[in-house]
Amino acid sequence: MQKKTKLKVFALGGLQEIGKNMTAFEYGNEIIAVDCGIAFPQDDMLGIDLVIPDFTYLADNRDKFKALFLTHGHEDHIGAIPFLLRQFNVPVYGTRLTLGLLENKLREHNLLSKAKLHTVEAGNRTKCGSFNIEYVRVTHSIADCVALAIRTPVGMVVHSGDFKVDHTPVQGDTIDLPRFAELGREGVKLFLCESTKIDEEGYTLSERHLGPIFSKIFEDSKEQRIMVATFSSNINRIQQIIDCAEKHKRKVAIIGRSMENAVKTASDLGYLSIPKNVAIEPHEIKNYTDKQIVIITTGSQGEPMSALSRMATAEHRFIEIKPKDKIIISSSPIPGNERSINKVVNELMKRGADVISDGQIEVHVSGHAKREEIKLLHALLKPRYLMPIHGEFRHLVSHKNLAIEMGMKKENVFVLGIGDVLELNEKGIQRGEQVISGQTLVDGLGVGDVGNIVLRDRKHLSQDGLMIVVIIMERRRGHVIAGPDIISRGFVYVRESENLMEEARSRVRYALIECEDNRITDWSVIKSIVRDVLKEYLWQKTKRSPMILPVIMEI
Amino acid sequence: MQKKTKLKVFALGGLQEIGKNMTAFEYGNEIIAVDCGIAFPQDDMLGIDLVIPDFTYLADNRDKFKALFLTHGHEDHIGAIPFLLRQFNVPVYGTRLTLGLLENKLREHNLLSKAKLHTVEAGNRTKCGSFNIEYVRVTHSIADCVALAIRTPVGMVVHSGDFKVDHTPVQGDTIDLPRFAELGREGVKLFLCESTKIDEEGYTLSERHLGPIFSKIFEDSKEQRIMVATFSSNINRIQQIIDCAEKHKRKVAIIGRSMENAVKTASDLGYLSIPKNVAIEPHEIKNYTDKQIVIITTGSQGEPMSALSRMATAEHRFIEIKPKDKIIISSSPIPGNERSINKVVNELMKRGADVISDGQIEVHVSGHAKREEIKLLHALLKPRYLMPIHGEFRHLVSHKNLAIEMGMKKENVFVLGIGDVLELNEKGIQRGEQVISGQTLVDGLGVGDVGNIVLRDRKHLSQDGLMIVVIIMERRRGHVIAGPDIISRGFVYVRESENLMEEARSRVRYALIECEDNRITDWSVIKSIVRDVLKEYLWQKTKRSPMILPVIMEI
Repeated sequence: MQKKTKLKVFALGGLQEIGKNMTAFEYGNEIIAVDCGIAFPQDDMLGIDLVIPDFTYLADNRDKFKALFLTHGHEDHIGAIPFLLRQFNVPVYGTRLTLGLLENKLREHNLLSKAKLHTVEAGNRTKCGSFNIEYVRVTHSIADCVALAIRTPVGMVVHSGDFKVDHTPVQGDTIDLPRFAELGREGVKLFLCESTKIDEEGYTLSERHLGPIFSKIFEDSKEQRIMVATFSSNINRIQQIIDCAEKHKRKVAIIGRSMENAVKTASDLGYLSIPKNVAIEPHEIKNYTDKQIVIITTGSQGEPMSALSRMATAEHRFIEIKPKDKIIISSSPIPGNERSINKVVNELMKRGADVISDGQIEVHVSGHAKREEIKLLHALLKPRYLMPIHGEFRHLVSHKNLAIEMGMKKENVFVLGIGDVLELNEKGIQRGEQVISGQTLVDGLGVGDVGNIVLRDRKHLSQDGLMIVVIIMERRRGHVIAGPDIISRGFVYVRESENLMEEARSRVRYALIECEDNRITDWSVIKSIVRDVLKEYLWQKTKRSPMILPVIMEI
Repeated sequence: MQKKTKLKVFALGGLQEIGKNMTAFEYGNEIIAVDCGIAFPQDDMLGIDLVIPDFTYLADNRDKFKALFLTHGHEDHIGAIPFLLRQFNVPVYGTRLTLGLLENKLREHNLLSKAKLHTVEAGNRTKCGSFNIEYVRVTHSIADCVALAIRTPVGMVVHSGDFKVDHTPVQGDTIDLPRFAELGREGVKLFLCESTKIDEEGYTLSERHLGPIFSKIFEDSKEQRIMVATFSSNINRIQQIIDCAEKHKRKVAIIGRSMENAVKTASDLGYLSIPKNVAIEPHEIKNYTDKQIVIITTGSQGEPMSALSRMATAEHRFIEIKPKDKIIISSSPIPGNERSINKVVNELMKRGADVISDGQIEVHVSGHAKREEIKLLHALLKPRYLMPIHGEFRHLVSHKNLAIEMGMKKENVFVLGIGDVLELNEKGIQRGEQVISGQTLVDGLGVGDVGNIVLRDRKHLSQDGLMIVVIIMERRRGHVIAGPDIISRGFVYVRESENLMEEARSRVRYALIECEDNRITDWSVIKSIVRDVLKEYLWQKTKRSPMILPVIMEI
């Protein structure tokens, strides 16, 4: 009977959106998932800390869910795992560095002791029910990344993870192109391929390209203190900066919590080597002159609480920005962060620092494949079907067009959304019934308790504030005993708007008298009248619509 | 005695910030201002519609303020004029198109009939007390722009306005480089020069560069409906699209209120020519086939209420996006708008449209001078002193470095903030005493009534919502008659958090009993205790800090 079983392939995140990457494969009574990341909240998700995939489909199929496989250790691939494991303590397979970074995270969530983590390495295979997962080395902006070749009863599916084709990686092996060629020869049914940089022509430069550039900057800044801000997970970038520091006889201090954690984990596991005589602690910086110091820190995206932002606003414990400090921002802005980064750069420059960012000198290379690299993987794997992943809708469509240019049939490429299902059998492929998918918002300790109503209220409050009207009424006859009292926040500066507030109060008072005259005693009707009277008055006077909250108490 | 009078030069906007450009010149008892623009609110200015300069200094020197001179008709140069004229009805000098656009604005604010508008043209001079203002033709991304050569008793000051060096403008004359050379020969004491694109190498391309590119796209899209989104003020861009439409035998419909206004004004004044047989009304679109239509519209920055955004979400009255529609987004993102633009592009593509934006094909050129053009103006004017304007701090510093590279002495370049004053006399220059400057927030009808306290409250409300606690107390002995009642908004979804709310209520109840036991009757103390008890409980349970508003009513 198994011949007739179909393989279902679907994403719970990472399609038509950036982040919270998660794909799933279901065959008969078995589901495996690949990655489980977070996304950053959109501008309209006020007060939200994180966005994670909606796990409802997995909960509804709890017994089928067998294991989670990881491609690499970035937040958008592992960040939501604590929330997943709290619900489903499935075994997790990942490479050493990926699991090392995950362990930090699980420890914070008090989940480490129970977690079932299995270390694998490129070249290994894991058998998991009907699935057989092979890990294939790829290069990216973090070490120890793999793509997955998933053999299933209906054929092989390759999941690219995130990758670039780096022929000269700073650490570790190159992307295993020969193995991709072999997989292609064996026959790839479906290719899930990342699409982040699909709109950029050509090739992404090797990480190693930056070494000489940093060296030149160090050369040109002999008398200056040097500070580099970059992504904490970019271990290879950090290694190049450390190497450069050693060459120029400078000490290195690591500043910023996430940077310290990542560096410690990577060093412990042997992915990063910091010579003993090079590393110093933050509090030791003061023992050295400027030209003896390199600081590596977080905040390259202008994050308000990061070390660099706090330095920029002179709120950092150890580091005070000084005139002539040479600060390298080694990253490119993630869309949406441009203004925050500009703000930090301006503040640093106001303190006299000399700031280099990617606009002026090339101090960053991407971790993602551009068009030619994506074509290369397509050419090696020669997949029958393609499902572009990891990108906004426009990226997925571009990826589809690229595949068609390369000779793939239009109908063999599937631009999907999260929850859309592909069903494969030995003969072909078709669209299946959708599964439940979406986004779960994390706010403080609350996971999923903030939804559209709460967000709508926050949005309303954020725009025009609120006005509370408190009225005490007599229980039986419904006449007003005290109030209306009016309290507002976020609406107008009350001290300068006494007339407005007084007039608002008397409008409500008249409305209440009319209610009593008309023997209206239904609270909800009274509240609605009060709301309408105030809304109209305030709009007419201010062209603003604060949230109006009538509160009636009875005694 | 006049020999000893100093010329004061200062900006009330546009220094160390983008937008709300306004500079002022004061000599003896006379002040003139140049431009008076708006800025868009920063991310943390919740609910704010516009930001305008703080006019306090002008109000404090009302009798001195003689006139306003305009360089061009962009919002960041004329947008705040209605707010200025309401306080100071000074004469306003500008070119025909600039005043045409200003008139639309003043009409909306019911200020047109009283306004004293004086039309000038490049080459003219206006004498205004001790000042003599000459208008010098420059090119930019809107027609009819001028720089100002302001002759004063202590020497000539040149204000560049916004400019690029366009040797082949689509309409009107080229930038008057010979006149700049003559001014240089006459002797320029101080140059106020714009800095927007100072960080980009080389030259900005001519607006005319886009003609053949549009033509090629039209050629390649013979069967498709074509839609172009661009800035409504970019009359020359619109002209090129209209010309292209005529050449390809298509009709043109203008959609979007600001676009309709700008096109009407520019056509009436002769800056734009739409052949009669080309223009159609939006409601006539349905009478033509796709290949007979070009739609020119607003929304190239992803503005949520713009025509293009409404089309993207299928909320537009006349236009429904169809598969194969060719949509050209002819602009580049203003920092901060990237995400909104991406969102619109994705939505348009989901409806099947074929979207071209500046990333893929060059469908936009800037209106601002890059480094070489700025150098050219420096070289022609040979100013003694430089005050870089129109830019963030980093731009002003870059501009300073450029001037130093060109041989200017470091101490002759002034990187200032708004309110900083330069004092010039016949011999030299020095820093003067600061004047009051800042930002005035416009929210609905309110101008300046929203300040830090209101914004702080909006921010707080937007992050975690609020919780209101209402208590009725007996006037004399201070014991609780009714309540506590708890109402929350934007905090948690109440129906799913009944336990939390119930427990919160009982914590407050216990706190109130304790207050009574301890004979605490001071309301402010009681409120503070209630706030602390709730704050701690909610933080512990949710790691959120809603605004807590205890309301005590007495009877």
